[in-house]
Amino acid sequence: MSSYAVVKDDILLRLRKIEGQVKGLQRMVEENKYCVDVLVQIAAARAALKTVGTMIIEQHVRGCVRNAIAREKGDEIIDELIDVLNRFMA
Amino acid sequence: MSSYAVVKDDILLRLRKIEGQVKGLQRMVEENKYCVDVLVQIAAARAALKTVGTMIIEQHVRGCVRNAIAREKGDEIIDELIDVLNRFMA
Amino acid sequence: MSSYAVVKDDILLRLRKIEGQVKGLQRMVEENKYCVDVLVQIAAARAALKTVGTMIIEQHVRGCVRNAIAREKGDEIIDELIDVLNRFMA
Amino acid sequence: MSSYAVVKDDILLRLRKIEGQVKGLQRMVEENKYCVDVLVQIAAARAALKTVGTMIIEQHVRGCVRNAIAREKGDEIIDELIDVLNRFMA
Repeated sequence: MSSYAVVKDDILLRLRKIEGQVKGLQRMVEENKYCVDVLVQIAAARAALKTVGTMIIEQHVRGCVRNAIAREKGDEIIDELIDVLNRFMA
Repeated sequence: MSSYAVVKDDILLRLRKIEGQVKGLQRMVEENKYCVDVLVQIAAARAALKTVGTMIIEQHVRGCVRNAIAREKGDEIIDELIDVLNRFMA
Repeated sequence: MSSYAVVKDDILLRLRKIEGQVKGLQRMVEENKYCVDVLVQIAAARAALKTVGTMIIEQHVRGCVRNAIAREKGDEIIDELIDVLNRFMA
Repeated sequence: MSSYAVVKDDILLRLRKIEGQVKGLQRMVEENKYCVDVLVQIAAARAALKTVGTMIIEQHVRGCVRNAIAREKGDEIIDELIDVLNRFMA
């Protein structure tokens, strides 16, 4: 079950843009572009991935987590949420 | 000038793998995979980009920054380094 | 309403230890200790604060957020949660 | 050897303010303040520590690292810098 249906198109657009950024990074490295220019692009791609992650976390809490709690089945899904938040804060 | 020549092949390999991860993410979202599974993959791609960034930062300091300082032209490159480190720590 | 009652003593112990770390940092800086040694201590204090934050986030979701959702009053508290998660991921 | 002498007073002022924030956090937890209010304060203290860290990293690169490289003793100090940057990006 995915809760991100409402923002699915936006997320796919962002992921395609991120794919473009990663391809651009490969070109930059192949052409021996200046380190700092490569690093700025890497930071941009990471920030874009973080935005997508935050969007999905939000929808997950509003959807899956809320539904599980409403059905009194929140324990497991909250454990899982805490675990995935820790991965994102790393 | 790029200082990462010594690790260029390794970096390109990693970037291609990251491109694959981002394509995989698009497939997962298209197929409405479970939010947490998508999030775990996003966290993995972000971590992989961070590793590439750290590799380039390291080579940049050992190469470009070291050379600039040795030629007594360190000021500007150090400003630039601090700025890019801030982007990475964001 | 605070949800962290079950871990309150543990959190207070950790915060007192963090206070000690911050005082230790002041001493180190007053005594002109080596930059990297100061930086290692700063990173340790930040990591300790992050652990406390994660503990409180976990209890908040299990307590306040779960209760609000169970009472069908989840919207506002989820907005607030997403906002505070963003601050932590910064 | 510490390179942060030029910003030492500023750093000490910031560390004293952070000590105050951590003491404030203890009071908040003792008084069972609302989770999200505690979390906002934790995020603020972490951000303040990050600022101090960035200030010291900057001075360290401008001072210790630059001097070591100028004396052709850069290898070890660069290893150490990369290691401490990794701790900060964690």
